[in-house]
Amino acid sequence: MLEKVDLTKKMSKEEYREKMPQLEAKLGFLQRRCKELKIPVLIVFEGFGASGKGLQIGRLIQSMDPRGFQVYPIKNETDEERMHPFMWRFWTKTPERGRFSIFDGSWYRKVLIDRFEMRTREKELPAVFHSINSFEEQLADDGNVIIKLFLDIDKKEQKKRFDKLRKNKESEWRVSQGDLERNARYDEYASMMEDMLFKTDSDYAPWTIIEATDRRFATVKIYTTVIKALADRIEAIQEEMGTKNGMKPAEMEDTRAADLAREADREMRSLQVSILSKADLSLKYTREEYKLKLDKLQKKLEKLHGELYRRRIPVVLGFEGWDAGGKGGAIKRLTARMDSRGYAVNPTASPNDIEKAHHYLWRFWRAMPKDGHVAIFDRTWYGRVMVERIEGFCTKEEWQRAYKEINDMEKDLHDAGAIVIKFWMHIDKDEQERRFKERQENPEKQWKITDEDWRNREKWDQYEDAVNEMLLRTSTDYAPWVVVEGNDKYYARVKVLRTVVEAIEKRIGEMK
Amino acid sequence: MLEKVDLTKKMSKEEYREKMPQLEAKLGFLQRRCKELKIPVLIVFEGFGASGKGLQIGRLIQSMDPRGFQVYPIKNETDEERMHPFMWRFWTKTPERGRFSIFDGSWYRKVLIDRFEMRTREKELPAVFHSINSFEEQLADDGNVIIKLFLDIDKKEQKKRFDKLRKNKESEWRVSQGDLERNARYDEYASMMEDMLFKTDSDYAPWTIIEATDRRFATVKIYTTVIKALADRIEAIQEEMGTKNGMKPAEMEDTRAADLAREADREMRSLQVSILSKADLSLKYTREEYKLKLDKLQKKLEKLHGELYRRRIPVVLGFEGWDAGGKGGAIKRLTARMDSRGYAVNPTASPNDIEKAHHYLWRFWRAMPKDGHVAIFDRTWYGRVMVERIEGFCTKEEWQRAYKEINDMEKDLHDAGAIVIKFWMHIDKDEQERRFKERQENPEKQWKITDEDWRNREKWDQYEDAVNEMLLRTSTDYAPWVVVEGNDKYYARVKVLRTVVEAIEKRIGEMK
Repeated sequence: MLEKVDLTKKMSKEEYREKMPQLEAKLGFLQRRCKELKIPVLIVFEGFGASGKGLQIGRLIQSMDPRGFQVYPIKNETDEERMHPFMWRFWTKTPERGRFSIFDGSWYRKVLIDRFEMRTREKELPAVFHSINSFEEQLADDGNVIIKLFLDIDKKEQKKRFDKLRKNKESEWRVSQGDLERNARYDEYASMMEDMLFKTDSDYAPWTIIEATDRRFATVKIYTTVIKALADRIEAIQEEMGTKNGMKPAEMEDTRAADLAREADREMRSLQVSILSKADLSLKYTREEYKLKLDKLQKKLEKLHGELYRRRIPVVLGFEGWDAGGKGGAIKRLTARMDSRGYAVNPTASPNDIEKAHHYLWRFWRAMPKDGHVAIFDRTWYGRVMVERIEGFCTKEEWQRAYKEINDMEKDLHDAGAIVIKFWMHIDKDEQERRFKERQENPEKQWKITDEDWRNREKWDQYEDAVNEMLLRTSTDYAPWVVVEGNDKYYARVKVLRTVVEAIEKRIGEMK
Repeated sequence: MLEKVDLTKKMSKEEYREKMPQLEAKLGFLQRRCKELKIPVLIVFEGFGASGKGLQIGRLIQSMDPRGFQVYPIKNETDEERMHPFMWRFWTKTPERGRFSIFDGSWYRKVLIDRFEMRTREKELPAVFHSINSFEEQLADDGNVIIKLFLDIDKKEQKKRFDKLRKNKESEWRVSQGDLERNARYDEYASMMEDMLFKTDSDYAPWTIIEATDRRFATVKIYTTVIKALADRIEAIQEEMGTKNGMKPAEMEDTRAADLAREADREMRSLQVSILSKADLSLKYTREEYKLKLDKLQKKLEKLHGELYRRRIPVVLGFEGWDAGGKGGAIKRLTARMDSRGYAVNPTASPNDIEKAHHYLWRFWRAMPKDGHVAIFDRTWYGRVMVERIEGFCTKEEWQRAYKEINDMEKDLHDAGAIVIKFWMHIDKDEQERRFKERQENPEKQWKITDEDWRNREKWDQYEDAVNEMLLRTSTDYAPWVVVEGNDKYYARVKVLRTVVEAIEKRIGEMK
């Protein structure tokens, strides 16, 4: 989940000052409603050292009624705590209905710092994760709203903050030896965090990543996340109460929570990092560069393909992208010199009747490659969270849970030894128009363009939101998304080939 | 889950012949309804070798339309299968909507036989369990009914069956070296099965244990389990369709599924093993025996209590039982010589307002002992699945998920090193009446008896069903239930003391 997080996000002082008063008023209102409706709330702050957890908690509670919450700083266990099961100290701190428990650090300590420092042994981990998930599920089933915030900063930023703290006599003590150690071995610690996020991100207690390089941006995102979670719950409860009394939602007296939920939804989207907008579409190669690089990479891949076969490594390559984004062309160059007995290209059309009569992943499972083979998918299982989502071919619940389902499937492939890479072939709207027109005008390419392509184009913004969310939520270290800057076809094709070649070389290198 | 299974269950030929024609007709009908409603169904047969999986599958499909199902025998992986992720061969065998996939052996092979034979390494297990649960959850979310049957026989019965097969030239081949090995190390294999059941028993794909010593009993229970699961789902779907069309359940044309669901529910209950009815309530000690044993055990416990403290072992003892079953008296004898600084008796009354404002387990978590201490609960968290269930103090959903919640809590205690034992103080109805009357007549004991006790007594049968289900579903190797034969108070008190003493001695023995 940390794979595609954009830590350069910033917010200006002006924007911040404009937004905050409203957010604070909303949170105050929602806290009062939670009290009235007796909703218990847990807010968990986790993340890297010096990411600003304490500061952000201080900022959050400023707009809350102090009689309604308690902040629990979670440090090393006391003697008393050590003498109990590790969840004991958290169970005893769960909030009364209508109150908030805010955790500065939490039960996740056991699978983060304690794991890093080997106080939690690897063989204990499965039971610990089971306990954590069971704890959260039980509280959620009992009506608790559980909001988990993960404050993310990168290694450099963390180092900078530690250095600053250490320069000052008064703040020096705040940086421990452990902090420095975790900074030095940042990647190792980050991979424990990834593991934790993968194993504990659930419908009933989802994680939200907070880009915490910029304090103001983080504050606004935290407020918005909390407001959205509370407003959603309150709306759901009010709706249920309304249904019981035979009222339609519109007839209900208090629609403020519903309004807040919608506003927060919009706000969250505007805070959403647009990964696509970061792509540099001016990247290009001359024809000569292209020829040279292409030739070299194709020859390399030809050899590596044989190597894959001998070493029995399966490869799964998924291609998605804008219509006319260059998927077909890239796949053609990729497979040009590969032995046709060792790969298969699976074009993904609308599901047929038999496919529709199964789980949507079934047809993709069937096409997964055996060891030593390469399966290339021209459009993929990600249709679920793009076209099916946008066209309403599946319910909101269905596409929302698909992120986890897809992550789980790709994890199974990875665990079975597969190299898994997903490409997003990216072009801008103008380039698409140019290509559409070119296709229409060229009799040999006319078959490639349909009315549907033009209709999809009208929904560009909706697709862009969906794609960004998809990239954020399903790019993992074991199955990363690669955004391919595709306005220049030469550049795109070379990047695809190079990515595949490098991934295979890396894997083979690890096996030696 | 296997802890309290009664493998002596039998069914007479007459009863079997009377029941089967109806069950077969019901299954046939439900299969047709599943087809009409396009419900996909998975039925999994797992269990010990020679428990009769193949035979029972044959019996089950006799009443099914062969065009609507497929049976998949799951053996060692083929070369093709071995070259794919391990879930691949199961994904590709998932049923089309309206059809049945029946698995003779299944994905559980990976955490049973393959684990036993060390083809699955211990460090792979967490990921494998994650894959299994994800697979089942995804299919359930997609509308599949998942029925998992675990056929249970004991070591002796298995040996007998293997011997019989091996005597005959024609069936000799059916007993493999692996089978014999698993029989020889039956307990070890059974504990892997327990682990598997604990980790994969879920709302969306629950396990049903089939007592398989007697073939006829097993067949009837399997039919009933399948019928119940299908009828429940069909009823739910019809109800939803009815609600959409604005009909009340009673107005719906087809109430047959609802009827079948209710009948199957009753049938399941009658097949339910009554653990309580097996208790031998004639067990007793003379006053002299009692005095002698009590004195000896109390002295032992006094010493062991100090040992617990030195070794920092926490102990959790839960007492439940019929009103006037002798809980108080047993606890008094138990603690008679224990150092009062090292134990606490927690009487559990109705929850107060603050307790009600938390998760029902919260107040018990708070009272859990620290290392080296003993916590005794006079009535426990099991109120959830007894009085709260029967009096309607919580919803059906709430008490149904409580079994897992409680198992998880006790697992946390166990993982933290605690000895956990639960006692059911058992008396029969006549003995209860005798004790109630005695209390009423004795001025010093009158306070102990209230109108509520008499009211509860009227619900004896309901309680007995609830207690049996509780004992079956929450007696685990890490936190067993002990049924204490309590008509004779002397016997009961000694048995409680002896159980505690032995459990502590065993634990200390393991530490040496």
